[in-house]
Amino acid sequence: MAAVQSAPQVNGHGGYGKNVTEALLQEEKNEQSSVDKLSKDQDLVLKTIRLLIADLCAQFKAGHPGGAMGMAAIGVALWKYVMRYNPREAEWFNRDRFVLSNGHACLFQYCFLHFAGYPAFDLDMLKSYHSEKPESLCPGHPEREAEGIEVTTGPLGQGITNAVGLAMATKHLAAKYNQDGFDVVNNHTWCMMGDACPQEGIGQEAISLAGHWRLNNLTVIYDNNQVTCDGSVDMTNTEDINARFRAANWDVIDVYDGCFDINGIVEALKKARQSRDKPTLVNVRTIIGVGSAVAGQAVAHGVPFKADDVQQMKKTYGFDPEQNFVIPQAVRDFFADIPSRGEQHVKEWNDLVASYSRAHPKLAAEFQSRRDGNLPNDWESLIPTSFPTEPTPSRKASGLTFQPIADKTPTFMIGTADLSPSVNLLYPSKVAFQNPNLKTTCDINGDYSGRYIHYGVREHAMAAISNGLAAYNPGTIIPVTSSFFMFYLYAAPAVRMGALQKLHVIHLATHDSIGMGEDGPTHQPIELAALFRAMPELVYIRPGDSEEVAGAWSAAIKCREGPSMISTSRHALVQQKTTRRDGVSKGAYVLEEVEGRADVTMIGVGAELSFAVDVAEKLREKGLKVRVVSFPSHRLFEKQSVEYKRGVLRRHEGIPAVVIEPYAALGWERYADAGVNMKTFGHSLTNEYVYKHFGYEVGSMTERVERFLDDRKSEKIYPGEYAEI
Amino acid sequence: MAAVQSAPQVNGHGGYGKNVTEALLQEEKNEQSSVDKLSKDQDLVLKTIRLLIADLCAQFKAGHPGGAMGMAAIGVALWKYVMRYNPREAEWFNRDRFVLSNGHACLFQYCFLHFAGYPAFDLDMLKSYHSEKPESLCPGHPEREAEGIEVTTGPLGQGITNAVGLAMATKHLAAKYNQDGFDVVNNHTWCMMGDACPQEGIGQEAISLAGHWRLNNLTVIYDNNQVTCDGSVDMTNTEDINARFRAANWDVIDVYDGCFDINGIVEALKKARQSRDKPTLVNVRTIIGVGSAVAGQAVAHGVPFKADDVQQMKKTYGFDPEQNFVIPQAVRDFFADIPSRGEQHVKEWNDLVASYSRAHPKLAAEFQSRRDGNLPNDWESLIPTSFPTEPTPSRKASGLTFQPIADKTPTFMIGTADLSPSVNLLYPSKVAFQNPNLKTTCDINGDYSGRYIHYGVREHAMAAISNGLAAYNPGTIIPVTSSFFMFYLYAAPAVRMGALQKLHVIHLATHDSIGMGEDGPTHQPIELAALFRAMPELVYIRPGDSEEVAGAWSAAIKCREGPSMISTSRHALVQQKTTRRDGVSKGAYVLEEVEGRADVTMIGVGAELSFAVDVAEKLREKGLKVRVVSFPSHRLFEKQSVEYKRGVLRRHEGIPAVVIEPYAALGWERYADAGVNMKTFGHSLTNEYVYKHFGYEVGSMTERVERFLDDRKSEKIYPGEYAEI
Repeated sequence: MAAVQSAPQVNGHGGYGKNVTEALLQEEKNEQSSVDKLSKDQDLVLKTIRLLIADLCAQFKAGHPGGAMGMAAIGVALWKYVMRYNPREAEWFNRDRFVLSNGHACLFQYCFLHFAGYPAFDLDMLKSYHSEKPESLCPGHPEREAEGIEVTTGPLGQGITNAVGLAMATKHLAAKYNQDGFDVVNNHTWCMMGDACPQEGIGQEAISLAGHWRLNNLTVIYDNNQVTCDGSVDMTNTEDINARFRAANWDVIDVYDGCFDINGIVEALKKARQSRDKPTLVNVRTIIGVGSAVAGQAVAHGVPFKADDVQQMKKTYGFDPEQNFVIPQAVRDFFADIPSRGEQHVKEWNDLVASYSRAHPKLAAEFQSRRDGNLPNDWESLIPTSFPTEPTPSRKASGLTFQPIADKTPTFMIGTADLSPSVNLLYPSKVAFQNPNLKTTCDINGDYSGRYIHYGVREHAMAAISNGLAAYNPGTIIPVTSSFFMFYLYAAPAVRMGALQKLHVIHLATHDSIGMGEDGPTHQPIELAALFRAMPELVYIRPGDSEEVAGAWSAAIKCREGPSMISTSRHALVQQKTTRRDGVSKGAYVLEEVEGRADVTMIGVGAELSFAVDVAEKLREKGLKVRVVSFPSHRLFEKQSVEYKRGVLRRHEGIPAVVIEPYAALGWERYADAGVNMKTFGHSLTNEYVYKHFGYEVGSMTERVERFLDDRKSEKIYPGEYAEI
Repeated sequence: MAAVQSAPQVNGHGGYGKNVTEALLQEEKNEQSSVDKLSKDQDLVLKTIRLLIADLCAQFKAGHPGGAMGMAAIGVALWKYVMRYNPREAEWFNRDRFVLSNGHACLFQYCFLHFAGYPAFDLDMLKSYHSEKPESLCPGHPEREAEGIEVTTGPLGQGITNAVGLAMATKHLAAKYNQDGFDVVNNHTWCMMGDACPQEGIGQEAISLAGHWRLNNLTVIYDNNQVTCDGSVDMTNTEDINARFRAANWDVIDVYDGCFDINGIVEALKKARQSRDKPTLVNVRTIIGVGSAVAGQAVAHGVPFKADDVQQMKKTYGFDPEQNFVIPQAVRDFFADIPSRGEQHVKEWNDLVASYSRAHPKLAAEFQSRRDGNLPNDWESLIPTSFPTEPTPSRKASGLTFQPIADKTPTFMIGTADLSPSVNLLYPSKVAFQNPNLKTTCDINGDYSGRYIHYGVREHAMAAISNGLAAYNPGTIIPVTSSFFMFYLYAAPAVRMGALQKLHVIHLATHDSIGMGEDGPTHQPIELAALFRAMPELVYIRPGDSEEVAGAWSAAIKCREGPSMISTSRHALVQQKTTRRDGVSKGAYVLEEVEGRADVTMIGVGAELSFAVDVAEKLREKGLKVRVVSFPSHRLFEKQSVEYKRGVLRRHEGIPAVVIEPYAALGWERYADAGVNMKTFGHSLTNEYVYKHFGYEVGSMTERVERFLDDRKSEKIYPGEYAEI
């Protein structure tokens, strides 16, 4: 029953070499040695869960059995002995959060949600894994919609980074609301990761930040089975993982017999929860597919076991080889106390909050409001009603719009990937979210009550951490991220995960368009808007002047069922006379109308809106009747009625539309007949000259629009054929 | 003159704390102490370069001066004393490669290319930095087109990862072609990085892999100035950087007075070149903006100095404060021997290669052919002329097509981000690129002559390393990457950098479309094709059956002026009767034609091509005249003539087109009038059921096409209005 064991011979890279794997495998075969560490019930529980996982993969001959089986003892430690939660009230605010960063091992989580007593996860639901049922809560990777699942995981490295965000949320809310004797927020975040998460760059960013911020309420449990799809991990990773975490200011606890030593794991996890000033890595050596004929092999990762292998396992374990999905009553009994313990946790917390409300009524009211996800009603009144009339960069207008809201509204946590001077989000009362014991060289210090997050140059982690902050509890924290627009390509996988989970995160991008200038083609987005316009659930907005920036922020804050991205300019934009913030909320609207028949509609967008207005003016001088439409957001426009959309574009009346946007045309073909777009990457030139270089001069564009209209009249270009002019 | 100094008081995190910064700043002010380390000429050179950088940023009041100035002594060490290259033959095959991973400090590189004598970089060219001249070779970040610049950098973390690829290319070619006494390939790769590259996830992936592969021919020089845009690095990174690199199997050499101690830097770099079995980090403490009034401050990073600050620097340095761009003759003389030394390097190497050709004529001929970038003529004949007629996953057909080529053609280096069992690229003679001294637990070993690269779960590094492999010398290595299509979103920033540099890299993606099934929405790409279709220079291809897969590989291999991405299915695809590999090369072509007037053109794509064929058949049964077009690649189609394009689509004849593709519609509006596309994320269901769930059933799709045709006739839908049906 010794919890802290002597280490088997571990090789230099923090995994275990062949000798150790074999030693562990041998030990497993030596049943007595393993069972010595377990009570009889614990032993039966582990066998039952492993067989259940094998059966669940066998029924449709698909799934990932090995990892889930190898982690069974960790699951028992977590759900039975360590985590504080209530299966009958899955959304209890102060619950411990659990994240399965190795999401393909989802059966691990589904099984323990089942045994812990989450009502939705009954045995039939487990059996829907990989079935034909669209209503299944057991998809191929865990999805946030189901009770007991905090975040959707699967793409590797996302989960551990979400977990950092979840732990930060606790730290922040605790710093803000806890009072002496009233730790109303003190939950712990537990994250399982496999061998892949610390290989992925985003995982490394998360490790670095969690250590930097000294998130002692975060424990990462490493399912160290040293196997990935291609073979053994030492084919591709010979780092000393423990040393790597320690270099990043983590504590490390080793567990060497992770498939059996439940008590050792419990002791390690309890120690981790007590950590005073560092996050903890619990490095647990396990055997993938333990108990099966392919134990320790790569094939155990993503391939169900053979039928005779499963039968043999059942025989060895003393189960009937002909029966599937067998759960002995002793196993049910083993987990039976969890719901009542959960109810007790909630009751104690409710009592605590009740006395907190009496002792600190004002704070408690705010705390309640935050838990309810309410935004103060006055946020929209904080947006300026008018803006300076001189040309203004939209990134500056963004600051003018949002800083007053950020200043007064604690719901927003605002971060940047090392671009504070560029993104204009430093609100007056800014305090950094920071380890309070850190004294920085530049004297920019902070504490956990701070709401401004310096992420360093880590765009991907910024977005994924923000997903975690937003996932903590609906509406309690609205994270804002910021960077150059181009660098949202680094963050895109996490932006996508936020969209998939419909998390209310706002991304503030600046330096959009080639107009950002001399930083050159590496920094000039051409194709990126196509990605974000195509991404489901994400609202991508390019406002064209300060008034539209106000509309963009308003739309992004109101859009609570998913993320938004506001795309702004580095350079000064002319203020238009007829832009309207409420127009932005509709995606597109008419800036300048023509009664009756018009010759052309000019569509302007974002930083180049003024080009459309100016070209329209020139065309009018030449006698044409020209409409102008401002078109900041495809997604918002698509939400409008057919009548509204036709009224804005009037293409059904045969009026051709020409869009000006120095991005790839992709997507504009739906709304326009021609476009002044980009087919190449950009060029390093100052703002004025880069536009000139690519033909974004009013005179030249005007001529090209005229020529297009002629070509269309003479049927050189047919309707429906998008012309890049 | 002591090269190895005692360490100033260094804080725990491998940077230096305030005390040390101040000590270094103080030391700098104490002129005698600094100059003691320098010869008079060296001192003048440093002053000249710093002032030149300040002047270059001052002229257009833009640019990044501070980093470049702080690194001046490192530049002298590299270009004057350490690197082997020939400025008069910039493309010399065995030259040392230099990568500026902190690309914003590009003036550093431009200045040293100037002083080293690269003809293009004369003083006028330097002065074109941030000018209005589009032909400038001094853009805001270094671009590969210019002599002396190996790779385009800027987005942080890319350069260091490219450098890993460059070092691997050397290792690989050396293992393949060097013979006793004939080290025809033995160049070293030098990479400068700033404080950001080891924060970015991709940089961490690169560090991990370089150490794993024991690339002793790679030296990373860390410009450790502890300043980024937001302030001091310790705001966001308190890792022990040296310990982090050591954990990843790197050697670390410290240099403490990096702004002045040229000789100390030279000694460190020479030691690094001698490393026997590890890559080396040379951790050089510098002061950003050294010599200026804002030395050591964040504002020195991306803002030119004030005029009086520059004047004061000139006075302090004994220069005329009224004169700009002054380069004393002594400085010219200091660098004057570089070209002749360069010529000598090349001559010695040419002599070596000449005797190698006599000693090893066959090998030398192959070596020459590789250097010339030739592919053996027979590669296309290795592609099967026919394929099995039963339904075949296109990922499997991809293996059937490419494995014979990979097997016989040493030009290809083929890697995967831990998905060997899925991507089907394991060719018969496969040997892993691997540290030859590593014995893996799974007994999959290799050596540096191996051409199969196990990247681990590191998609982003895989793509960026491949850019480095391709950039080593045009056509010498053609890298192939592979992963699930969805995970190319992780790799996208590097895919983009390859496209921007027109590097011949082939990306083989599998599990495209929702048809990949039960792994669910996290793995089902919806919006990703829009990104890659919009990305300039990249050829994205979705082949529809085995015949088209052959065409896709053929097109990708022939497309030598940029990257391609082949997107394949997990599930089996019906083999079509009229698909043609040469049709793929044109992007789209007619599968089934109708003489004269037709009612509709069905467009099929990739994994869903058979849906279009089947719907067409059903529509014919109902009496309609239906054409079918296969459309594997937008980019290749756009390269065709107007006549060809109209001939394929025939929309100008008024024949409406309907596309079937379960992706976001974005981009199809150019070619089709309606589409069966996706507006939401996918769902975890097996292949058959996920298609059903989203309405991809032939019967239902047929009805919807009919309804669309009716709606169009009755003008419920207007031409030009894309209908998602």
